[in-house]
Amino acid sequence: MSLETIVSTLDRDGRPNFAPMGIALEGDHVLLRPFSTALTWRNLQEVEEGVVNFTDNVALFARCAVGPFLPSHHDARKVRAKVLDDACFWKEFVVESKDLDGERGRFSGRVVSEGRRRDFVGFNRARHAVIEATILATRLHLLGRDRVLEEMARLRPLVDKTAGPAEREAFEFLTEHARRWNDAH
Amino acid sequence: MSLETIVSTLDRDGRPNFAPMGIALEGDHVLLRPFSTALTWRNLQEVEEGVVNFTDNVALFARCAVGPFLPSHHDARKVRAKVLDDACFWKEFVVESKDLDGERGRFSGRVVSEGRRRDFVGFNRARHAVIEATILATRLHLLGRDRVLEEMARLRPLVDKTAGPAEREAFEFLTEHARRWNDAH
Repeated sequence: MSLETIVSTLDRDGRPNFAPMGIALEGDHVLLRPFSTALTWRNLQEVEEGVVNFTDNVALFARCAVGPFLPSHHDARKVRAKVLDDACFWKEFVVESKDLDGERGRFSGRVVSEGRRRDFVGFNRARHAVIEATILATRLHLLGRDRVLEEMARLRPLVDKTAGPAEREAFEFLTEHARRWNDAH
Repeated sequence: MSLETIVSTLDRDGRPNFAPMGIALEGDHVLLRPFSTALTWRNLQEVEEGVVNFTDNVALFARCAVGPFLPSHHDARKVRAKVLDDACFWKEFVVESKDLDGERGRFSGRVVSEGRRRDFVGFNRARHAVIEATILATRLHLLGRDRVLEEMARLRPLVDKTAGPAEREAFEFLTEHARRWNDAH
């Protein structure tokens, strides 16, 4: 099963990066598959540690996915990496093995610490619509603006019916991002 | 914001019912809007107490939505109602006010106790696809089988990409339920 999380890593100069990413949990291990073009891929080579953040704050997914955005954060306990201030819970890991073949790496990390701050809110259809819209926004170069806007329009009723203000704003932010996208980008 | 939960109530003879339902949280109150044809509506009249269960076990949503199904459960602490054994967390409430006009009632319940068992797993796209498929399955009489199967086919890639065995099975169960549905029902 793949879980949508925000993975945080540092580069060798200590600059943090927060990347939305689907990961797999296998016992006390996390499996990450960043693209070889991603900062997370490079950072996990330079600093073989990181944090998998589980949060229901979908605005953080939206913002981190489409632009340079630094959410508020604090130091992890046992690894050189950062924890989202608004994580519900998180897992700190150390890379144990990696496979760099192909366009997506495979990093297997052993969980060395974890923490918890609050309950994940549960199923909200609007939040999931924002997660799907976030993934669409990162695929504009593959799908094209028209297709992305069409799929977003299909998701909008979930937002209209079940969102709070934060989900509404995140969804508008992503729609606006897609609208401004230049297909010749 | 509307949260997808499983609401449990008892009838006056103590028989439990578990109904998937979108609810709203407002401070220490829950707002429920069951249809006037629903068992939850009748039970909340007979026994003005209940439990809102938050669980990431989507098979329970699927099973409770489309048929008579009694998930494993235990007594609530402070109200006459049952708690799902596989709830991540739950809120026990007492009805404080109700408005029975219209085809959907409005029951406002004050939370008198709550409990927690485990972390809600976080965002999994397949689980949300199962939630959406569950809602579609309860609307077969409104949308018709063809439309429902078409929408389910649109959701299937999320299951194929991100599900574990439990999500896959729940999705197949719902698809099969829709396939067997008789439009003349």
